[in-house]
Amino acid sequence: MVTLQDVRDAAARLDGVAHRTPVIHSRTLDARVGAEVFLKAENLQRIGAFKFRGAYNAIRKLSPEQLRRGIAAYSSGNHAQAVALAAKELGTTAVIVMPEDTPRSKLDAVAGYGAEVITYDRYTGNREQIGARLAADRGLALIPPYEHPDVIAGQGTAALELLDETGPLDAIVVPVGGGGLIAGSAVAATGLQPGIRVIGVEPEAGNDTFLSLAAGRRVSIPVPRTIADGQAAPTPGELTFSINRELVEQIVLISDDEIRDALRFAVDRLKLVMEPSGATGLAALLAGRLDPPPARLGVIISGGNIGAARLAELLA
Amino acid sequence: MVTLQDVRDAAARLDGVAHRTPVIHSRTLDARVGAEVFLKAENLQRIGAFKFRGAYNAIRKLSPEQLRRGIAAYSSGNHAQAVALAAKELGTTAVIVMPEDTPRSKLDAVAGYGAEVITYDRYTGNREQIGARLAADRGLALIPPYEHPDVIAGQGTAALELLDETGPLDAIVVPVGGGGLIAGSAVAATGLQPGIRVIGVEPEAGNDTFLSLAAGRRVSIPVPRTIADGQAAPTPGELTFSINRELVEQIVLISDDEIRDALRFAVDRLKLVMEPSGATGLAALLAGRLDPPPARLGVIISGGNIGAARLAELLA
Repeated sequence: MVTLQDVRDAAARLDGVAHRTPVIHSRTLDARVGAEVFLKAENLQRIGAFKFRGAYNAIRKLSPEQLRRGIAAYSSGNHAQAVALAAKELGTTAVIVMPEDTPRSKLDAVAGYGAEVITYDRYTGNREQIGARLAADRGLALIPPYEHPDVIAGQGTAALELLDETGPLDAIVVPVGGGGLIAGSAVAATGLQPGIRVIGVEPEAGNDTFLSLAAGRRVSIPVPRTIADGQAAPTPGELTFSINRELVEQIVLISDDEIRDALRFAVDRLKLVMEPSGATGLAALLAGRLDPPPARLGVIISGGNIGAARLAELLA
Repeated sequence: MVTLQDVRDAAARLDGVAHRTPVIHSRTLDARVGAEVFLKAENLQRIGAFKFRGAYNAIRKLSPEQLRRGIAAYSSGNHAQAVALAAKELGTTAVIVMPEDTPRSKLDAVAGYGAEVITYDRYTGNREQIGARLAADRGLALIPPYEHPDVIAGQGTAALELLDETGPLDAIVVPVGGGGLIAGSAVAATGLQPGIRVIGVEPEAGNDTFLSLAAGRRVSIPVPRTIADGQAAPTPGELTFSINRELVEQIVLISDDEIRDALRFAVDRLKLVMEPSGATGLAALLAGRLDPPPARLGVIISGGNIGAARLAELLA
C-alpha cells in the first residue's frame, strides 16, 4: 500500500524540481458557492498537470541500472509529457506509446523533451500490452499512469502541499480518472487529518469508479464519451481502487455542460485556464453537487492542457 | 512626489486585503526568450487587476469625514471595479462615472459591489469634467485612475512584492496606460535596487508615453485604436510623467498581433488568462523587443478581465 510517509518522501524528492503550485482563493467563488474554497492550481504545474509529480517520483526511485536502460510508458495525455520530462531531468531516456491520432502538438511536446514516440491504432491495439511488450523487449522500466505505488505517492504531494498551506479542511475534492490522484491525495489528506472528507468527481459518462464503489468491486463501462478526456478510463485501477474504496467518501457526477460552465467561470472570474478534466472539481462545486456541502474545502485543479483553439471552441 | 516609504506604507495598508498574487515562473517561457522570467500575476488580484491596490490605498487614507461623504471616480475599466470594491470594503459609498456603452457585465460588476453608476456619452462628454463636477456637487472625494500619489504608491506594491520574492533583477517590464502602475513600480524597484532597468510597454497605436519621453514633454495623440483598451490613454498623466521621465529607461512598442500571440501563449503554455493590456509585457518579451535583453527580469501581468466570449474571439 501507500502511506503518508511515502507521500512525504515523494515530496522531498520533488522539492526544487516540481513547482510548489499556488493555492488560489477567490472571494467571488466563495460567495457563489457559500463556502471557503482553496484551489490547488496544478494546471500551473510543470507540463501543465499534476502528472509530473508521480512520474518523477517513480523514475527517481529506479536503480542506476534501470535508469541506464531507460523508461517505457503509454499515454495519450499528460502522463506522456510527464514521463518524457521526468526522464530528461533524470538523465535517462523514455519511449512513449501514444495513439496515432494524438494531436500533433502533444506528439511534438513529448518528442521535444527528447522521448521516442511509438504510435499505435487505438481501435485495434491494446496499449497496456504494447507497453509491456516494449518494456520486456528492450529491458525498460514501465511507468504506468496510475497503477504504481510510487506514482500514487507522487500525486499525493499535491494534497500534502494544499493542506500544508490551508491548515485543516472539511473536505478535499479531487477529479477521478484512473484514480491515482485521488488515491494519493486521500492517503495524504486522511494521514494528515483523520476524518477529512475525500470527495471524488467523475464525468457522468465516465462513472466507472462511482459504479465500482456502489458495487463494492471494480466495474467496467464502455469507453466514456466526454469532453473530460483525462477521465475517460473505463475501469478503476486495481491498486487505486483498493485505496479509494477505503478512503473516498463519495463520488459525485457532473455533466459535460457543467464542465463547460466551469471552464467559463474559470476564465471569467478566476483568470485560469483549465482543461475539462482539470475543472471537474470546480464544476461539482458550482453545480452544488456536494452533499452535505463542506464549509471549508480544497479542490485540486488537476491540469490545464487544452490549447487555445480547443478552449475557444468550448467557450464559444 | 512618491517615495519607497509611501509604497511600503501602502503595502502595510493592503496586507490581508489585497491578494499577494503569485509570481509565476515557466521554464518553457525562459527557454523561449533566453532569460529568467518572473511573472507577477496581477490578473489573479481581486477584481482581476492591479487597480485594486491603488484604489484601496487612496481610499484608506481618506479622513473619517471624507469616508462618511463617499467617493467619486470615472473609469470604463478596471479602476471602476477597484474603487467600487475598495469603497465597499471600507464601509463607504462610491459613485462611478462610466461610458453608456460599457459592456453590461462591467456595469453589473460595479453595481454588484454596491456602487452607484452614472453613465455618459463618451463621444460628447468629458469624464474628468463630469467626475469633478459630481465630486464638487455632492462633496465626494474624487479618486482618479492614476493622477494621485496614493494611487501610484498603491500600484507600486505589485513591484515591491515581486522583488521581495525574486531578489535582485536586471529589469522590470511594465505595461503603460496612464502611467500609474509603472510610476509606482519604478519608485519601488529603483528604491529597493538602484540601477534596476524599468522598461515600459505600450501598444503601437497608444504610444503617447513613448513620444512624450522622446519629446521631453507630454504629447497628446488621437484616441488610440488598439485591442489593449486599458492602454488607450491619449496622453500621459502630469504626475505620472514627472516620475516616469526620471525613472523609466525606455518604452517599447508592440503591435496588436503581437499581443494576440501573447494571449495565445499565455493560454497554451502558462494556463493564464490575460486581458490584452495585461499581456503587453509578455508580448514584448516574446517579440524579442527588449534591447539589450535582460538576463533576469520581472514582468507585471497587469490584469485578466477579458471575458470568455472576447477571449474566444481573440484566440480564434
